[in-house]
Amino acid sequence: MAGETTITLVGNLTDDPDMRFLPSGAAMCKFTVASTPRVFDRDKGEYRDGDPLFLNCTAWRDLAEHIAESLKRGTRVVMTGRLKLSRWEDKETGEKRSMMQLDVDEIGPSLRFATAKVQKMSRTRGGDGFVPADAPDDGWSSASSERPAA
Amino acid sequence: MAGETTITLVGNLTDDPDMRFLPSGAAMCKFTVASTPRVFDRDKGEYRDGDPLFLNCTAWRDLAEHIAESLKRGTRVVMTGRLKLSRWEDKETGEKRSMMQLDVDEIGPSLRFATAKVQKMSRTRGGDGFVPADAPDDGWSSASSERPAA
Amino acid sequence: MAGETTITLVGNLTDDPDMRFLPSGAAMCKFTVASTPRVFDRDKGEYRDGDPLFLNCTAWRDLAEHIAESLKRGTRVVMTGRLKLSRWEDKETGEKRSMMQLDVDEIGPSLRFATAKVQKMSRTRGGDGFVPADAPDDGWSSASSERPAA
Amino acid sequence: MAGETTITLVGNLTDDPDMRFLPSGAAMCKFTVASTPRVFDRDKGEYRDGDPLFLNCTAWRDLAEHIAESLKRGTRVVMTGRLKLSRWEDKETGEKRSMMQLDVDEIGPSLRFATAKVQKMSRTRGGDGFVPADAPDDGWSSASSERPAA
Repeated sequence: MAGETTITLVGNLTDDPDMRFLPSGAAMCKFTVASTPRVFDRDKGEYRDGDPLFLNCTAWRDLAEHIAESLKRGTRVVMTGRLKLSRWEDKETGEKRSMMQLDVDEIGPSLRFATAKVQKMSRTRGGDGFVPADAPDDGWSSASSERPAA
Repeated sequence: MAGETTITLVGNLTDDPDMRFLPSGAAMCKFTVASTPRVFDRDKGEYRDGDPLFLNCTAWRDLAEHIAESLKRGTRVVMTGRLKLSRWEDKETGEKRSMMQLDVDEIGPSLRFATAKVQKMSRTRGGDGFVPADAPDDGWSSASSERPAA
Repeated sequence: MAGETTITLVGNLTDDPDMRFLPSGAAMCKFTVASTPRVFDRDKGEYRDGDPLFLNCTAWRDLAEHIAESLKRGTRVVMTGRLKLSRWEDKETGEKRSMMQLDVDEIGPSLRFATAKVQKMSRTRGGDGFVPADAPDDGWSSASSERPAA
Repeated sequence: MAGETTITLVGNLTDDPDMRFLPSGAAMCKFTVASTPRVFDRDKGEYRDGDPLFLNCTAWRDLAEHIAESLKRGTRVVMTGRLKLSRWEDKETGEKRSMMQLDVDEIGPSLRFATAKVQKMSRTRGGDGFVPADAPDDGWSSASSERPAA
C-alpha cells in the first residue's frame, strides 16, 4: 500500500484493550485512545486540559497480543498507524454514517510518566532492522531482571 | 515554540542510553536510534533490510531517567520529537559542520516484538490529559504485578 | 497549545472551497479532501485505487482567502493541520454524534501533477522565517511574470 | 519500501532549485529548505525567529520539472518526504561523514502568505486518486484563466 494517511498519536487508553480471536485464529485487539491537548487559559494565566480527541484503534496478530498483555485502562501510549474511514448504513434510519479509525503499526507505553520492563518475545519473521552486532539475543530477560524493580 | 519540525521514528537503540546530570542537577539522557526500512529485492523476490537511518537523540528530566531505567542496547522504540540542527566549527580545520539531532518528546518501547510491564511514576506536575474517571490511581503496580511474567 | 494531534494529508478537493465571512469580518473557508491510497491487486498484479479517506477541513483569515483564490474542485493538495473532534447531539434522535475535522495550518497545491504560479501577498505580521538575505522582496510578481506561462 | 522515516516540513527555499538531467534523461532537482520555528522571548514578551533547520531535498522526474518551473528562492513550501542518511568518506582526511537528506514525495507552495495559479499537467500514469466524477478534466486551464490575477 502506498499513499496511506499515517498519524502519530499520544494519549491514554480509555479502557482495557478488548482482545478477540477471529475464526481464522488470528488475534485482534481493539481499544480507544484519548489524546488531550494542553491549552493556555489567558484569564487564569495557566495551562489546562483542552478537549480530548478520541480515536478507535485496532491491532492485529502478535502486536495485538503484546498490547493486551502490556497496556490497560489509563496507560499513556505513543503510537503510529494509518487512518481509515469506516462507512456503513444505519439499519433503522438508513442514514449513512462514517467513523475514523486507526490501524496500529507501532505502539509503546510512554516513558514520560512511567518506566517499563521490556521483555523481548521470540518472533517467527525477520525484519527487526538494525540491531547492534554483539547484542546478546538471549540477554533480554536476564538483563532486565537484574534491574531493580522500577 | 511554534513551527518546529516534528518527526516520528521507529527503530532500535544502538547502545545503552548515556545518562548524565547537569551541574543544575537536571537529568539528561543521550542515545542513538537506528531506523531500518525494508526494501524489496526484485532479483531475489523478497524483502531485505535497507540502509539504516541513524539519529542522535536527547531527552531531559523525568523522561531521561525513565529512559535510562527502561531501555537498552537493541530495544525497539517508537518515538516523537523535534528535529534540531547542531552547527559548529571544526577546531582543527576550521570547517563548518552540522548534525541533525532529535529532542525527544515522547518515547516508548515498541510492542511489535516485545511486551512491557509498565510502572507509573509519581509526578509533580499535572497534565496527563484524559484519564478514565474511575481509574484506580494506586492500581498500577498491584495490577501489573498480578500479571504473569510476560 | 501543546500536545495537539497533527496530521499531514495528501489528496484532492471534492468540491470548490466554501468561503464565508463571520460577523466579526474574519474569513473562514471550508472544504473536503479525499485521500486515496494505492493498493496492490494481487489477482491482477497491478495497483489500483483503495478506499478514499475523506476529511473535512477548515482554514481561517488570510489562509482561507488564499485557498479560495487558488484551489478548486479536483485540485491535489499537500497539507498539515490539527485533528479535532466535533461532538454534538442529534436534535431529532437525541443520539450523540461526533466527526473528525482538520484545522488547516499549511496547505499548498501539489506539484506532482501540476505546476503553479506563486504570487506573494503583502502581510501584516512578520514571522515568515528564514528568507535569503538578498531575496528581492518586491521581486515576486515581476520574477514570476518573466517566466513562460506554466 | 516499508518502514521508511517520513517527515513533513514547512519552510523557505534558500535558493532557486537546481535542475539537472541524468544521462538516462531523467530529471532531478535539488534544493535546500530552511524551516524556522518561532520562539517566545520571555524578556521581551514577544515571538522571534528561532534557529532555522536546513534540509537538502531531492525530487525526481515530473515532480522535479514542476518544482523547477514553479518554485524559486524564498518561496515558502509545505512538503513531505523520506529522510535518508548519505554517508561518505572525506577523501583528504579519511574521516567518515554523513548528512541527512530528504527524498521529496509531495510538495506545494504554501498558501499562508501567497496565492497560486495551478495548471494541471497531462500525465502518463493513473493514480491521482479520488477526483469528483463530474470534474471537467479539460477545465483546469480555462477555469483558472477566468479568475482575476491573484
